[in-house]
Amino acid sequence: MIRANDKLRKKLYIIIFRSDTKAGKSFDVLLLILILLSILSVFLESVGSVRERYYHIIHILEWVFTFLFTIEYLLRIYASHKPLRYIFSFYGIVDLIAFMPTYLSLFFIGTQYLIVVRAFRLLRVFRILKLTRFLYEGNILKSALRASLYKIVMFLSSVITLVTIIGTLMYIIEGEKSGFTSIPMSIYWAIVTITTVGYGDISPQSPLGQILASILMVIGYGIIAVPTGIVSVEMSKATEAAKTKCPNCYAGLHNEKDRFCSNCGHQMKK
Amino acid sequence: MIRANDKLRKKLYIIIFRSDTKAGKSFDVLLLILILLSILSVFLESVGSVRERYYHIIHILEWVFTFLFTIEYLLRIYASHKPLRYIFSFYGIVDLIAFMPTYLSLFFIGTQYLIVVRAFRLLRVFRILKLTRFLYEGNILKSALRASLYKIVMFLSSVITLVTIIGTLMYIIEGEKSGFTSIPMSIYWAIVTITTVGYGDISPQSPLGQILASILMVIGYGIIAVPTGIVSVEMSKATEAAKTKCPNCYAGLHNEKDRFCSNCGHQMKK
Amino acid sequence: MIRANDKLRKKLYIIIFRSDTKAGKSFDVLLLILILLSILSVFLESVGSVRERYYHIIHILEWVFTFLFTIEYLLRIYASHKPLRYIFSFYGIVDLIAFMPTYLSLFFIGTQYLIVVRAFRLLRVFRILKLTRFLYEGNILKSALRASLYKIVMFLSSVITLVTIIGTLMYIIEGEKSGFTSIPMSIYWAIVTITTVGYGDISPQSPLGQILASILMVIGYGIIAVPTGIVSVEMSKATEAAKTKCPNCYAGLHNEKDRFCSNCGHQMKK
Amino acid sequence: MIRANDKLRKKLYIIIFRSDTKAGKSFDVLLLILILLSILSVFLESVGSVRERYYHIIHILEWVFTFLFTIEYLLRIYASHKPLRYIFSFYGIVDLIAFMPTYLSLFFIGTQYLIVVRAFRLLRVFRILKLTRFLYEGNILKSALRASLYKIVMFLSSVITLVTIIGTLMYIIEGEKSGFTSIPMSIYWAIVTITTVGYGDISPQSPLGQILASILMVIGYGIIAVPTGIVSVEMSKATEAAKTKCPNCYAGLHNEKDRFCSNCGHQMKK
Repeated sequence: MIRANDKLRKKLYIIIFRSDTKAGKSFDVLLLILILLSILSVFLESVGSVRERYYHIIHILEWVFTFLFTIEYLLRIYASHKPLRYIFSFYGIVDLIAFMPTYLSLFFIGTQYLIVVRAFRLLRVFRILKLTRFLYEGNILKSALRASLYKIVMFLSSVITLVTIIGTLMYIIEGEKSGFTSIPMSIYWAIVTITTVGYGDISPQSPLGQILASILMVIGYGIIAVPTGIVSVEMSKATEAAKTKCPNCYAGLHNEKDRFCSNCGHQMKK
Repeated sequence: MIRANDKLRKKLYIIIFRSDTKAGKSFDVLLLILILLSILSVFLESVGSVRERYYHIIHILEWVFTFLFTIEYLLRIYASHKPLRYIFSFYGIVDLIAFMPTYLSLFFIGTQYLIVVRAFRLLRVFRILKLTRFLYEGNILKSALRASLYKIVMFLSSVITLVTIIGTLMYIIEGEKSGFTSIPMSIYWAIVTITTVGYGDISPQSPLGQILASILMVIGYGIIAVPTGIVSVEMSKATEAAKTKCPNCYAGLHNEKDRFCSNCGHQMKK
Repeated sequence: MIRANDKLRKKLYIIIFRSDTKAGKSFDVLLLILILLSILSVFLESVGSVRERYYHIIHILEWVFTFLFTIEYLLRIYASHKPLRYIFSFYGIVDLIAFMPTYLSLFFIGTQYLIVVRAFRLLRVFRILKLTRFLYEGNILKSALRASLYKIVMFLSSVITLVTIIGTLMYIIEGEKSGFTSIPMSIYWAIVTITTVGYGDISPQSPLGQILASILMVIGYGIIAVPTGIVSVEMSKATEAAKTKCPNCYAGLHNEKDRFCSNCGHQMKK
Repeated sequence: MIRANDKLRKKLYIIIFRSDTKAGKSFDVLLLILILLSILSVFLESVGSVRERYYHIIHILEWVFTFLFTIEYLLRIYASHKPLRYIFSFYGIVDLIAFMPTYLSLFFIGTQYLIVVRAFRLLRVFRILKLTRFLYEGNILKSALRASLYKIVMFLSSVITLVTIIGTLMYIIEGEKSGFTSIPMSIYWAIVTITTVGYGDISPQSPLGQILASILMVIGYGIIAVPTGIVSVEMSKATEAAKTKCPNCYAGLHNEKDRFCSNCGHQMKK
């Protein structure tokens, strides 16, 4: 015997948490627009000239977004089978963070620092992307990155060592006159250089410093090939491996000849 | 019974639209030179010192180009089997845009804004490239990019999220004194940094800001491997797949052993 | 008959030089923390404001680190079977360099230059990484880089030639007014440009110089593909080759079907 | 009947043009040092402070290098079987250019412009590299680049079109106040940005301009994957194809099982 309450809860669950019905998809699109608008509002609030002129409109909008997100949050708790599990899940916390700062700003002064927290609303976008083909591609990316983790850590620790040693050398060679005021500052410069960012706020002035900088640049330019090579190889493997996975449920491996996924019944071939 | 009119039309069609005859090739080369010259003229007109000195020459040249492009456009309409289909095709519109701005400048003031439209003449260059081997290579590129679309969108949305969060953090850490005047400005800085462009018009001043910037740079430097890996893998697949396509008509797949294309008769093997 | 002395030596050897016991691992982690702290102290010492305020604390810390590294060094000599071989090995010298500068600073003035030597302590970190899976991945990287050495030298010598010729041309075109004060300076600029670092401390002012710079940039942007391509291919081969090597002892090649390494008995497959 | 003259000529030929004897290798190393020293002298001459102080030493050195290169050139003509063929070959002209400018500077004023010609001596270095394993690797690189030529031209023409259109848009949006003084200048800025060089001498000031710039940067950052993907694929193919070529004479393809090269007798396998 299923009561009306349970029926409503089930219906809500399908609309809010899933996206395989028309209502579910509409809810997702609406939520996506709402999230993006609320982030846009946060961005505009930070622009001095906009804040001064439209302070009241932004203030009201912020409370509207907060109100809507609060309702959504409560509905999510109501609809989920295990409310506590939802509340303490990654997305549960992200959902809470989306509206809490506005309430907190009533009690505390220093709303400026709460802006940064509100910008985390952007993470909610991934909740919606989660339910599409992106997850499949994301999985390939993730498994390729995980497989190359050791090589990349090895590579990064070599880069950090190189940057530290060359940064220290530049501190001795160039000194405080050229802006290399301390070893951490020189390491910062070395990172700016080896990654080919090159702000130009600090740059070597002495011939010896310029020679060392040139060597660092060429190394940085050359070794970018290493992580690329690593990821290319792993990506190639991961793509190969993903071929035999069901693109719907991603569970286990399937035989290449199977026409339907044995786990969820998704039709993989015609 | 083919009338002289139809004969002329057919002859014109072969010269203007195709490039497999000597006359057709000559027409293409002539048109290519004309397009490049007309763009060069637009560029020079925008240079203040040149505009002042050679105003009259550039003005006359512009009308010569407009006149020639108008004639070409009318001939294209006359020669094509289905004039309306040509007029509303992509290249038909590009062809129209190539000469319309000059006529419009007679009626409207503010020719400066029409320059930008005239620069679109450059797109006409692709019409000529279209008829060569480039299309074949272009197709491989296109199919590789299309196949990696989902992965690249996934990758770009991660980059945008990262850039937004770090940009917001920098707005809090560095503040308006260092040039991080608003969140959008800080995000702009984060994009300039993660893509390793590094203008240096805004750069972090505080130690904490420099540490965060260093992290962002290393991430940017490292993750450039991801799109490269994606495209490499797809490019490899697309090249493999293209092997069995006819390089002349690009229609369907052919058996590797076929010596002639079954669609256009192009000899693929000797 | 093994004397107590020999037993202690053996025990120490296992703790200090190896990391397959619990005590050995704890020692490694402790040493890693100590090394990183000592480097942090060197970095902070170089920051003017920190040095002035906390001079005494940093001074004391430096002697504590030196004392601990000295004890460790002596224990290593005592524990190793062939002390001389350890002393003159790469890590033996790095270990010595880690504490010598502080003693030397008692006799010599100019400690500033000894800072750079102290920063080499960072190399000690690799000693600890050496005993983990990183060596395996490091070997793949190394063999890929060694295999592509000739191609990379070829590539780099082409880049150096290009940079020299364009640098010299820019010296003639731009001259001393734009900051291109000498050929070496112009070559420095060309390296800054081709590696896409782009400080902006020197930049072309004349139209001809800007055209040449644009060409250099596009070349630099395009040819970054070459080392990447080289390393990708070699990395792919090296990964393939490493598959049949024992991940424990890395000695020789093994048959893919072998379940145990014939050299060290490591179980490769279940 | 071989005369003494012919014997000497043959001996000279082996020493000067080849490097498979001890004398030939010594000659190559000596010449390499001489070339690098002469280029170093050209570089130092361009540095104002060095030129003023050491004018006489540099002047004398320049004549010493010129004298030695002249002798070498005459010996090369004497030793070669077909002197005219050598004189008009690529390296023959490079060899002539290496010493001619100094003689010309006696008759003409404006030696500054002859410096640039002297720097072309660097090309002679390739003559020496030519006779080693580098040629083999260079061939793989060359064939990979040739195979990807069409794709790269296609890619570059898309980049140029993009840069032209965005450059023109920026000229309208930003205008002369932000430094975008003309369309060519704006295109120069767009190239500086899309290649991620980012000098920062010109940078967008308006929000709209910064948005457009951000898009350009992300595109530039993303599409660097395209040439890399192209070259990686071709490099992989070229490496595969080169396997069956003799590494000594590079002539034709050989059967993988052949133990000796059928052309030059080089032992390929044991």
